[in-house]
Amino acid sequence: MRALNPTDPARAVCLVSGGMDSAVALAEARAAGFECHALSFRYGQRHIVELEAAARVARALGAVEHRIVTVDLSALGGSALTDAIDVPKDRSEHAIGHGVPVTYVPARNTVFLAVALGWAETLGARELFLGINALDYSGYPDCRPEFLHAFEELARVATAVGTEQGARFRVHAPLLKLSKAAIVSRGLELGVDFGLTQTCYDPIVADVGGERALACGRCDACVLRLKGFRDAGRRDPVRYAEAGA
Amino acid sequence: MRALNPTDPARAVCLVSGGMDSAVALAEARAAGFECHALSFRYGQRHIVELEAAARVARALGAVEHRIVTVDLSALGGSALTDAIDVPKDRSEHAIGHGVPVTYVPARNTVFLAVALGWAETLGARELFLGINALDYSGYPDCRPEFLHAFEELARVATAVGTEQGARFRVHAPLLKLSKAAIVSRGLELGVDFGLTQTCYDPIVADVGGERALACGRCDACVLRLKGFRDAGRRDPVRYAEAGA
Repeated sequence: MRALNPTDPARAVCLVSGGMDSAVALAEARAAGFECHALSFRYGQRHIVELEAAARVARALGAVEHRIVTVDLSALGGSALTDAIDVPKDRSEHAIGHGVPVTYVPARNTVFLAVALGWAETLGARELFLGINALDYSGYPDCRPEFLHAFEELARVATAVGTEQGARFRVHAPLLKLSKAAIVSRGLELGVDFGLTQTCYDPIVADVGGERALACGRCDACVLRLKGFRDAGRRDPVRYAEAGA
Repeated sequence: MRALNPTDPARAVCLVSGGMDSAVALAEARAAGFECHALSFRYGQRHIVELEAAARVARALGAVEHRIVTVDLSALGGSALTDAIDVPKDRSEHAIGHGVPVTYVPARNTVFLAVALGWAETLGARELFLGINALDYSGYPDCRPEFLHAFEELARVATAVGTEQGARFRVHAPLLKLSKAAIVSRGLELGVDFGLTQTCYDPIVADVGGERALACGRCDACVLRLKGFRDAGRRDPVRYAEAGA
Protein backbone atom coordinates (compact mmCIF):
# COMPACT_ATOMS: atom_id res chain seq x y z
CA MET A 1 0.00 0.00 0.00
CA ARG A 2 1.56 3.25 -1.08
CA ALA A 3 -0.01 6.68 -0.65
CA LEU A 4 1.08 9.46 -2.97
CA ASN A 5 1.12 11.83 -0.05
CA PRO A 6 0.91 11.07 3.68
CA THR A 7 -2.45 12.83 4.01
CA ASP A 8 -4.04 11.03 1.05
CA PRO A 9 -5.53 7.59 1.33
CA ALA A 10 -3.87 4.94 -0.81
CA ARG A 11 -5.54 4.43 -4.14
CA ALA A 12 -7.07 1.30 -5.56
CA VAL A 13 -8.38 0.48 -9.01
CA CYS A 14 -11.59 -1.53 -8.66
CA LEU A 15 -13.09 -3.49 -11.53
CA VAL A 16 -16.85 -2.96 -11.47
CA SER A 17 -18.98 -4.95 -13.90
CA GLY A 18 -22.41 -3.97 -12.66
CA GLY A 19 -22.88 -7.40 -11.09
CA MET A 20 -23.22 -8.20 -7.41
CA ASP A 21 -19.76 -9.70 -6.87
CA SER A 22 -17.77 -6.72 -8.09
CA ALA A 23 -20.07 -4.44 -6.06
CA VAL A 24 -19.13 -6.33 -2.89
CA ALA A 25 -15.44 -6.27 -3.87
CA LEU A 26 -15.66 -2.48 -4.28
CA ALA A 27 -17.38 -2.22 -0.90
CA GLU A 28 -14.51 -4.23 0.63
CA ALA A 29 -11.96 -1.85 -0.90
CA ARG A 30 -13.83 1.13 0.50
CA ALA A 31 -14.15 -0.54 3.91
CA ALA A 32 -10.37 -1.08 3.89
CA GLY A 33 -9.95 2.68 3.49
CA PHE A 34 -8.87 2.91 -0.14
CA GLU A 35 -9.67 5.80 -2.43
CA CYS A 36 -11.40 3.80 -5.14
CA HIS A 37 -11.16 4.41 -8.87
CA ALA A 38 -13.81 2.29 -10.55
CA LEU A 39 -13.18 0.77 -13.96
CA SER A 40 -15.64 -0.89 -16.32
CA PHE A 41 -15.32 -2.23 -19.82
CA ARG A 42 -17.35 -1.93 -22.96
CA TYR A 43 -16.09 -5.20 -24.40
CA GLY A 44 -18.79 -6.08 -26.84
CA GLN A 45 -21.15 -7.52 -24.25
CA ARG A 46 -24.62 -7.81 -25.65
CA HIS A 47 -26.29 -5.89 -22.85
CA ILE A 48 -25.33 -2.35 -22.13
CA VAL A 49 -27.56 -2.36 -19.02
CA GLU A 50 -24.52 -3.83 -17.24
CA LEU A 51 -22.62 -0.59 -17.72
CA GLU A 52 -25.53 1.46 -16.42
CA ALA A 53 -25.55 -0.76 -13.35
CA ALA A 54 -21.77 -0.33 -12.96
CA ALA A 55 -22.14 3.45 -12.95
CA ARG A 56 -24.92 3.25 -10.30
CA VAL A 57 -22.87 0.89 -8.14
CA ALA A 58 -19.69 2.98 -8.36
CA ARG A 59 -21.57 6.14 -7.37
CA ALA A 60 -23.54 4.48 -4.57
CA LEU A 61 -20.43 2.94 -3.03
CA GLY A 62 -18.37 6.12 -3.05
CA ALA A 63 -15.84 5.56 -5.82
CA VAL A 64 -14.10 8.88 -6.56
CA GLU A 65 -14.45 8.30 -10.27
CA HIS A 66 -15.72 5.74 -12.75
CA ARG A 67 -14.24 5.18 -16.18
CA ILE A 68 -15.43 2.95 -18.97
CA VAL A 69 -12.79 1.66 -21.35
CA THR A 70 -13.69 0.17 -24.69
CA VAL A 71 -11.98 -3.14 -25.40
CA ASP A 72 -13.74 -4.61 -28.37
CA LEU A 73 -13.27 -8.33 -27.70
CA SER A 74 -16.32 -9.12 -29.83
CA ALA A 75 -14.10 -8.43 -32.87
CA LEU A 76 -12.36 -11.71 -32.02
CA GLY A 77 -15.38 -13.92 -31.36
CA GLY A 78 -15.53 -16.95 -29.10
CA SER A 79 -18.15 -16.51 -26.37
CA ALA A 80 -21.89 -16.55 -25.81
CA LEU A 81 -21.50 -13.26 -23.95
CA THR A 82 -20.34 -11.45 -27.08
CA ASP A 83 -21.44 -13.69 -29.96
CA ALA A 84 -24.86 -14.82 -31.07
CA ILE A 85 -24.50 -18.19 -29.30
CA ASP A 86 -27.45 -19.01 -27.06
CA VAL A 87 -27.00 -18.47 -23.36
CA PRO A 88 -27.89 -21.77 -21.64
CA LYS A 89 -31.08 -21.73 -19.60
CA ASP A 90 -32.66 -23.78 -16.86
CA ARG A 91 -29.54 -25.67 -15.87
CA SER A 92 -29.52 -26.99 -12.34
CA GLU A 93 -27.17 -25.46 -9.78
CA HIS A 94 -25.20 -28.71 -9.90
CA ALA A 95 -24.73 -28.65 -13.68
CA ILE A 96 -23.22 -25.17 -13.46
CA GLY A 97 -19.53 -24.78 -12.82
CA HIS A 98 -18.22 -27.96 -14.42
CA GLY A 99 -15.95 -27.50 -17.40
CA VAL A 100 -15.45 -24.23 -19.22
CA PRO A 101 -18.85 -22.63 -19.81
CA VAL A 102 -19.90 -21.23 -23.21
CA THR A 103 -20.06 -17.84 -21.54
CA TYR A 104 -16.28 -17.92 -21.00
CA VAL A 105 -14.61 -15.06 -22.89
CA PRO A 106 -11.01 -16.08 -23.69
CA ALA A 107 -8.50 -14.12 -21.61
CA ARG A 108 -11.12 -11.61 -20.49
CA ASN A 109 -9.81 -11.18 -16.96
CA THR A 110 -6.25 -11.03 -18.26
CA VAL A 111 -7.22 -8.17 -20.57
CA PHE A 112 -9.22 -6.36 -17.88
CA LEU A 113 -6.45 -6.65 -15.28
CA ALA A 114 -3.87 -5.50 -17.82
CA VAL A 115 -5.86 -2.32 -18.48
CA ALA A 116 -6.41 -1.86 -14.73
CA LEU A 117 -2.66 -2.21 -14.23
CA GLY A 118 -1.95 0.50 -16.78
CA TRP A 119 -4.40 2.85 -15.09
CA ALA A 120 -3.02 1.99 -11.64
CA GLU A 121 0.47 2.90 -12.78
CA THR A 122 -0.81 6.24 -14.06
CA LEU A 123 -2.70 6.91 -10.81
CA GLY A 124 0.08 5.81 -8.48
CA ALA A 125 -2.19 3.01 -7.24
CA ARG A 126 -0.73 -0.37 -6.27
CA GLU A 127 -3.91 -2.24 -5.39
CA LEU A 128 -6.31 -3.86 -7.86
CA PHE A 129 -9.65 -5.20 -6.66
CA LEU A 130 -11.90 -7.56 -8.54
CA GLY A 131 -14.92 -9.63 -7.66
CA ILE A 132 -13.95 -13.00 -9.11
CA ASN A 133 -15.03 -16.10 -7.32
CA ALA A 134 -13.52 -19.57 -7.51
CA LEU A 135 -16.45 -21.60 -6.22
CA ASP A 136 -19.40 -20.83 -8.42
CA TYR A 137 -17.32 -20.42 -11.55
CA SER A 138 -14.72 -23.11 -11.24
CA GLY A 139 -14.89 -23.53 -15.01
CA TYR A 140 -13.29 -20.13 -15.67
CA PRO A 141 -9.50 -20.60 -15.63
CA ASP A 142 -8.92 -16.91 -14.95
CA CYS A 143 -10.88 -17.02 -11.70
CA ARG A 144 -8.30 -19.05 -9.78
CA PRO A 145 -5.60 -18.11 -7.24
CA GLU A 146 -2.83 -19.38 -9.58
CA PHE A 147 -3.99 -16.85 -12.14
CA LEU A 148 -3.92 -13.98 -9.65
CA HIS A 149 -0.44 -14.87 -8.43
CA ALA A 150 0.86 -15.12 -12.00
CA PHE A 151 -0.63 -11.73 -12.75
CA GLU A 152 1.07 -10.13 -9.73
CA GLU A 153 4.39 -11.52 -10.94
CA LEU A 154 3.76 -10.16 -14.41
CA ALA A 155 2.77 -6.74 -13.01
CA ARG A 156 6.09 -6.42 -11.23
CA VAL A 157 8.13 -6.87 -14.41
CA ALA A 158 5.67 -5.18 -16.78
CA THR A 159 5.64 -1.73 -15.21
CA ALA A 160 8.03 1.18 -14.92
CA VAL A 161 7.42 1.53 -11.18
CA GLY A 162 7.90 -2.19 -10.65
CA THR A 163 11.14 -2.19 -12.61
CA GLU A 164 12.64 1.07 -11.39
CA GLN A 165 11.26 1.38 -7.85
CA GLY A 166 10.59 -2.24 -6.96
CA ALA A 167 6.89 -1.48 -6.49
CA ARG A 168 4.65 -4.52 -6.05
CA PHE A 169 1.10 -4.57 -7.24
CA ARG A 170 -1.43 -6.60 -5.34
CA VAL A 171 -4.48 -8.20 -6.87
CA HIS A 172 -7.24 -8.46 -4.30
CA ALA A 173 -10.05 -10.90 -4.89
CA PRO A 174 -11.85 -10.72 -1.54
CA LEU A 175 -14.68 -13.00 -2.68
CA LEU A 176 -12.47 -15.66 -4.18
CA LYS A 177 -13.38 -18.35 -1.70
CA LEU A 178 -16.81 -17.19 -0.59
CA SER A 179 -20.03 -18.96 -1.44
CA LYS A 180 -22.71 -16.90 -3.13
CA ALA A 181 -24.64 -16.91 0.15
CA ALA A 182 -21.61 -15.57 2.01
CA ILE A 183 -21.21 -12.86 -0.64
CA VAL A 184 -24.83 -11.82 -0.14
CA SER A 185 -24.39 -11.69 3.64
CA ARG A 186 -21.10 -9.81 3.45
CA GLY A 187 -22.50 -7.34 0.92
CA LEU A 188 -25.49 -6.56 3.12
CA GLU A 189 -23.16 -6.12 6.09
CA LEU A 190 -21.17 -3.56 4.06
CA GLY A 191 -24.30 -1.72 2.98
CA VAL A 192 -24.40 -2.82 -0.66
CA ASP A 193 -27.76 -2.19 -2.31
CA PHE A 194 -28.10 -5.30 -4.46
CA GLY A 195 -31.10 -3.74 -6.16
CA LEU A 196 -28.61 -1.61 -8.12
CA THR A 197 -26.73 -4.60 -9.51
CA GLN A 198 -27.26 -6.46 -12.78
CA THR A 199 -26.33 -10.13 -12.88
CA CYS A 200 -28.42 -11.69 -15.63
CA TYR A 201 -26.69 -12.94 -18.82
CA ASP A 202 -29.88 -12.47 -20.82
CA PRO A 203 -31.85 -9.57 -19.39
CA ILE A 204 -35.29 -8.75 -20.66
CA VAL A 205 -35.40 -4.99 -20.88
CA ALA A 206 -38.96 -4.06 -20.08
CA ASP A 207 -40.85 -1.11 -18.71
CA VAL A 208 -42.26 -2.26 -15.39
CA GLY A 209 -43.49 0.86 -13.68
CA GLY A 210 -40.05 2.44 -14.10
CA GLU A 211 -37.59 1.57 -16.81
CA ARG A 212 -35.96 -1.33 -15.06
CA ALA A 213 -34.15 -4.12 -16.87
CA LEU A 214 -35.57 -7.41 -15.62
CA ALA A 215 -33.44 -10.44 -14.96
CA CYS A 216 -34.51 -13.64 -16.73
CA GLY A 217 -34.28 -15.87 -13.65
CA ARG A 218 -33.17 -18.84 -15.77
CA CYS A 219 -29.62 -18.32 -17.01
CA ASP A 220 -26.67 -19.69 -15.00
CA ALA A 221 -25.93 -16.31 -13.44
CA CYS A 222 -29.53 -15.82 -12.28
CA VAL A 223 -29.76 -19.39 -10.96
CA LEU A 224 -26.60 -18.94 -8.88
CA ARG A 225 -27.63 -15.52 -7.66
CA LEU A 226 -31.06 -16.69 -6.58
CA LYS A 227 -29.59 -19.70 -4.82
CA GLY A 228 -27.19 -17.35 -3.00
CA PHE A 229 -29.99 -15.21 -1.67
CA ARG A 230 -32.01 -18.29 -0.78
CA ASP A 231 -29.13 -19.90 1.09
CA ALA A 232 -28.43 -16.65 2.92
CA GLY A 233 -32.09 -16.46 3.90
CA ARG A 234 -32.46 -13.05 2.25
CA ARG A 235 -34.70 -11.70 -0.44
CA ASP A 236 -33.16 -10.53 -3.74
CA PRO A 237 -34.42 -6.97 -4.40
CA VAL A 238 -34.06 -7.42 -8.18
CA ARG A 239 -37.27 -8.23 -10.05
CA TYR A 240 -37.30 -11.33 -12.24
CA ALA A 241 -39.26 -12.11 -15.36
CA GLU A 242 -40.00 -15.67 -14.26
CA ALA A 243 -42.51 -16.16 -11.48
CA GLY A 244 -40.52 -19.11 -10.14
CA ALA A 245 -37.59 -16.85 -9.32
CA MET B 1 3.65 -25.78 -31.94
CA ARG B 2 0.26 -27.38 -32.34
CA ALA B 3 -1.57 -27.75 -35.63
CA LEU B 4 -5.34 -28.09 -35.56
CA ASN B 5 -5.12 -30.76 -38.21
CA PRO B 6 -2.05 -32.55 -39.54
CA THR B 7 -2.44 -30.98 -42.98
CA ASP B 8 -2.84 -27.43 -41.68
CA PRO B 9 0.11 -25.26 -40.77
CA ALA B 10 0.24 -24.21 -37.12
CA ARG B 11 -1.27 -20.84 -36.46
CA ALA B 12 0.33 -17.79 -34.96
CA VAL B 13 -1.10 -14.48 -33.81
CA CYS B 14 1.25 -11.70 -34.90
CA LEU B 15 1.06 -8.20 -33.45
CA VAL B 16 1.50 -5.73 -36.29
CA SER B 17 1.77 -2.05 -35.45
CA GLY B 18 2.59 -0.68 -38.86
CA GLY B 19 6.21 -0.10 -37.80
CA MET B 20 9.29 -1.80 -39.18
CA ASP B 21 10.01 -4.07 -36.21
CA SER B 22 6.64 -5.80 -36.14
CA ALA B 23 6.83 -6.18 -39.94
CA VAL B 24 10.09 -8.10 -39.58
CA ALA B 25 8.63 -10.18 -36.73
CA LEU B 26 5.68 -11.10 -38.97
CA ALA B 27 8.09 -11.99 -41.77
CA GLU B 28 9.97 -14.27 -39.33
CA ALA B 29 6.71 -16.01 -38.38
CA ARG B 30 5.89 -16.55 -42.04
CA ALA B 31 9.42 -17.79 -42.76
CA ALA B 32 9.00 -20.29 -39.90
CA GLY B 33 5.95 -21.67 -41.72
CA PHE B 34 3.15 -20.34 -39.53
CA GLU B 35 -0.27 -19.40 -40.79
CA CYS B 36 -0.28 -15.81 -39.53
CA HIS B 37 -3.24 -13.96 -38.09
CA ALA B 38 -2.29 -10.31 -37.83
CA LEU B 39 -3.58 -8.17 -35.00
CA SER B 40 -3.44 -4.40 -34.59
CA PHE B 41 -4.89 -2.04 -32.03
CA ARG B 42 -6.77 1.19 -32.19
CA TYR B 43 -5.63 2.31 -28.74
CA GLY B 44 -6.05 6.03 -28.91
CA GLN B 45 -2.80 6.66 -30.75
CA ARG B 46 -2.80 10.09 -32.28
CA HIS B 47 -1.96 8.92 -35.78
CA ILE B 48 -4.23 6.55 -37.60
CA VAL B 49 -1.69 6.28 -40.44
CA GLU B 50 -0.08 3.54 -38.32
CA LEU B 51 -3.15 1.34 -38.80
CA GLU B 52 -3.14 1.92 -42.53
CA ALA B 53 0.49 0.85 -42.58
CA ALA B 54 -0.35 -2.22 -40.49
CA ALA B 55 -2.98 -3.29 -43.02
CA ARG B 56 -0.51 -2.83 -45.91
CA VAL B 57 2.20 -4.78 -44.08
CA ALA B 58 -0.12 -7.66 -43.13
CA ARG B 59 -1.33 -8.00 -46.70
CA ALA B 60 2.12 -7.70 -48.27
CA LEU B 61 3.62 -10.32 -45.96
CA GLY B 62 0.89 -12.89 -46.49
CA ALA B 63 -1.08 -12.85 -43.24
CA VAL B 64 -4.31 -14.80 -43.77
CA GLU B 65 -6.28 -12.10 -42.01
CA HIS B 66 -5.83 -8.81 -40.21
CA ARG B 67 -8.02 -7.60 -37.38
CA ILE B 68 -8.01 -4.30 -35.59
CA VAL B 69 -9.23 -4.30 -32.01
CA THR B 70 -10.18 -1.10 -30.24
CA VAL B 71 -8.63 -0.74 -26.80
CA ASP B 72 -9.18 2.81 -25.77
CA LEU B 73 -6.17 3.38 -23.51
CA SER B 74 -6.37 7.12 -24.12
CA ALA B 75 -9.35 7.12 -21.72
CA LEU B 76 -6.80 6.52 -18.96
CA GLY B 77 -4.12 9.04 -19.93
CA GLY B 78 -0.42 8.81 -19.21
CA SER B 79 1.63 8.93 -22.42
CA ALA B 80 2.84 11.26 -25.12
CA LEU B 81 1.60 8.72 -27.66
CA THR B 82 -2.02 9.14 -26.62
CA ASP B 83 -2.08 12.47 -24.72
CA ALA B 84 -1.29 15.97 -25.85
CA ILE B 85 2.22 15.80 -24.36
CA ASP B 86 4.93 16.86 -26.82
CA VAL B 87 6.90 14.10 -28.47
CA PRO B 88 10.61 14.84 -27.84
CA LYS B 89 12.60 15.88 -30.88
CA ASP B 90 16.24 16.07 -31.91
CA ARG B 91 17.59 13.89 -29.13
CA SER B 92 20.87 12.18 -29.90
CA GLU B 93 20.97 8.44 -30.40
CA HIS B 94 22.82 8.21 -27.10
CA ALA B 95 20.19 10.13 -25.13
CA ILE B 96 17.49 7.72 -26.33
CA GLY B 97 16.88 4.55 -24.40
CA HIS B 98 17.83 5.69 -20.90
CA GLY B 99 15.04 5.74 -18.33
CA VAL B 100 11.38 5.34 -19.16
CA PRO B 101 10.55 7.60 -22.11
CA VAL B 102 7.49 9.90 -22.13
CA THR B 103 6.19 7.82 -25.04
CA TYR B 104 5.81 4.82 -22.70
CA VAL B 105 2.15 3.77 -22.47
CA PRO B 106 1.59 2.05 -19.11
CA ALA B 107 1.03 -1.68 -19.53
CA ARG B 108 0.52 -1.37 -23.29
CA ASN B 109 2.29 -4.58 -24.23
CA THR B 110 0.57 -6.41 -21.39
CA VAL B 111 -2.81 -5.32 -22.74
CA PHE B 112 -1.90 -6.14 -26.34
CA LEU B 113 -0.54 -9.59 -25.47
CA ALA B 114 -3.61 -10.32 -23.34
CA VAL B 115 -5.90 -9.61 -26.28
CA ALA B 116 -3.63 -11.63 -28.56
CA LEU B 117 -3.83 -14.50 -26.09
CA GLY B 118 -7.62 -14.42 -26.13
CA TRP B 119 -7.66 -14.50 -29.91
CA ALA B 120 -5.03 -17.27 -30.00
CA GLU B 121 -7.17 -19.39 -27.73
CA THR B 122 -10.16 -18.88 -30.03
CA LEU B 123 -8.09 -19.73 -33.12
CA GLY B 124 -6.34 -22.74 -31.63
CA ALA B 125 -3.02 -20.88 -32.00
CA ARG B 126 -0.25 -21.32 -29.42
CA GLU B 127 2.34 -18.93 -30.81
CA LEU B 128 2.37 -15.17 -30.35
CA PHE B 129 4.81 -13.00 -32.29
CA LEU B 130 5.73 -9.44 -31.53
CA GLY B 131 8.41 -7.08 -32.69
CA ILE B 132 9.69 -5.74 -29.38
CA ASN B 133 13.34 -4.96 -29.02
CA ALA B 134 15.37 -4.71 -25.84
CA LEU B 135 18.31 -2.69 -27.13
CA ASP B 136 16.93 0.49 -28.60
CA TYR B 137 14.10 0.75 -26.08
CA SER B 138 15.70 -0.39 -22.86
CA GLY B 139 13.53 2.17 -21.07
CA TYR B 140 10.31 0.25 -21.75
CA PRO B 141 9.89 -2.32 -18.96
CA ASP B 142 7.56 -4.43 -21.08
CA CYS B 143 10.21 -4.97 -23.77
CA ARG B 144 12.39 -7.25 -21.65
CA PRO B 145 12.84 -11.04 -21.56
CA GLU B 146 11.62 -11.17 -17.92
CA PHE B 147 8.35 -9.69 -19.08
CA LEU B 148 7.93 -12.24 -21.86
CA HIS B 149 8.64 -15.16 -19.54
CA ALA B 150 6.20 -13.84 -16.96
CA PHE B 151 3.56 -13.52 -19.66
CA GLU B 152 4.07 -17.11 -20.83
CA GLU B 153 3.58 -18.28 -17.25
CA LEU B 154 0.42 -16.22 -16.96
CA ALA B 155 -0.90 -17.54 -20.29
CA ARG B 156 -0.64 -21.10 -19.06
CA VAL B 157 -2.86 -20.50 -16.04
CA ALA B 158 -5.13 -17.89 -17.65
CA THR B 159 -6.56 -20.02 -20.43
CA ALA B 160 -8.94 -22.93 -20.72
CA VAL B 161 -6.57 -24.86 -23.00
CA GLY B 162 -3.65 -24.22 -20.66
CA THR B 163 -5.62 -25.37 -17.65
CA GLU B 164 -7.47 -28.31 -19.14
CA GLN B 165 -5.07 -29.57 -21.80
CA GLY B 166 -1.73 -28.37 -20.48
CA ALA B 167 -1.18 -26.26 -23.60
CA ARG B 168 1.74 -23.87 -23.46
CA PHE B 169 1.73 -20.58 -25.27
CA ARG B 170 4.99 -19.21 -26.56
CA VAL B 171 5.75 -15.53 -26.94
CA HIS B 172 8.23 -15.03 -29.76
CA ALA B 173 10.17 -11.80 -29.92
CA PRO B 174 12.62 -12.61 -32.71
CA LEU B 175 14.08 -9.08 -32.71
CA LEU B 176 14.57 -8.84 -28.98
CA LYS B 177 18.34 -8.75 -29.07
CA LEU B 178 18.95 -7.36 -32.54
CA SER B 179 20.33 -3.92 -33.24
CA LYS B 180 18.28 -1.71 -35.53
CA ALA B 181 20.86 -2.30 -38.26
CA ALA B 182 20.49 -6.07 -37.86
CA ILE B 183 16.70 -5.70 -38.04
CA VAL B 184 17.04 -3.76 -41.31
CA SER B 185 19.36 -6.40 -42.76
CA ARG B 186 17.21 -9.30 -41.62
CA GLY B 187 14.04 -7.64 -42.92
CA LEU B 188 15.56 -7.10 -46.36
CA GLU B 189 16.73 -10.72 -46.38
CA LEU B 190 13.14 -11.80 -45.69
CA GLY B 191 11.74 -9.55 -48.40
CA VAL B 192 10.14 -6.90 -46.18
CA ASP B 193 9.29 -3.72 -48.08
CA PHE B 194 10.16 -1.09 -45.48
CA GLY B 195 8.54 1.54 -47.65
CA LEU B 196 5.19 0.20 -46.42
CA THR B 197 6.03 0.74 -42.75
CA GLN B 198 5.32 3.73 -40.55
CA THR B 199 7.69 4.39 -37.67
CA CYS B 200 7.43 8.12 -36.90
CA TYR B 201 5.85 9.23 -33.60
CA ASP B 202 4.86 12.55 -35.10
CA PRO B 203 4.14 12.12 -38.80
CA ILE B 204 3.46 15.08 -41.01
CA VAL B 205 0.63 14.02 -43.27
CA ALA B 206 1.29 15.78 -46.54
CA ASP B 207 0.46 15.33 -50.19
CA VAL B 208 3.77 14.69 -51.88
CA GLY B 209 2.93 13.50 -55.34
CA GLY B 210 0.76 10.74 -53.86
CA GLU B 211 -0.92 10.91 -50.49
CA ARG B 212 1.95 9.63 -48.43
CA ALA B 213 2.38 10.37 -44.74
CA LEU B 214 5.85 11.78 -44.22
CA ALA B 215 8.03 10.88 -41.29
CA CYS B 216 9.40 13.82 -39.30
CA GLY B 217 12.98 12.57 -39.17
CA ARG B 218 13.49 14.08 -35.70
CA CYS B 219 11.54 12.09 -33.10
CA ASP B 220 13.24 9.25 -31.21
CA ALA B 221 11.68 6.61 -33.45
CA CYS B 222 12.86 8.32 -36.65
CA VAL B 223 16.34 8.93 -35.22
CA LEU B 224 16.75 5.25 -34.33
CA ARG B 225 15.30 4.06 -37.62
CA LEU B 226 17.57 6.29 -39.67
CA LYS B 227 20.60 5.21 -37.66
CA GLY B 228 19.62 1.57 -38.28
CA PHE B 229 19.54 2.04 -42.03
CA ARG B 230 22.77 4.03 -41.93
CA ASP B 231 24.56 1.39 -39.86
CA ALA B 232 23.29 -1.34 -42.17
CA GLY B 233 24.55 0.61 -45.15
CA ARG B 234 21.09 0.69 -46.73
CA ARG B 235 18.80 3.45 -47.82
CA ASP B 236 15.45 3.93 -46.04
CA PRO B 237 12.73 4.00 -48.73
CA VAL B 238 10.47 6.18 -46.54
CA ARG B 239 10.51 9.88 -47.35
CA TYR B 240 11.28 12.30 -44.54
CA ALA B 241 10.20 15.88 -43.98
CA GLU B 242 13.66 16.96 -42.81
CA ALA B 243 16.36 17.26 -45.41
CA GLY B 244 18.98 16.02 -42.96
CA ALA B 245 17.23 12.68 -42.71
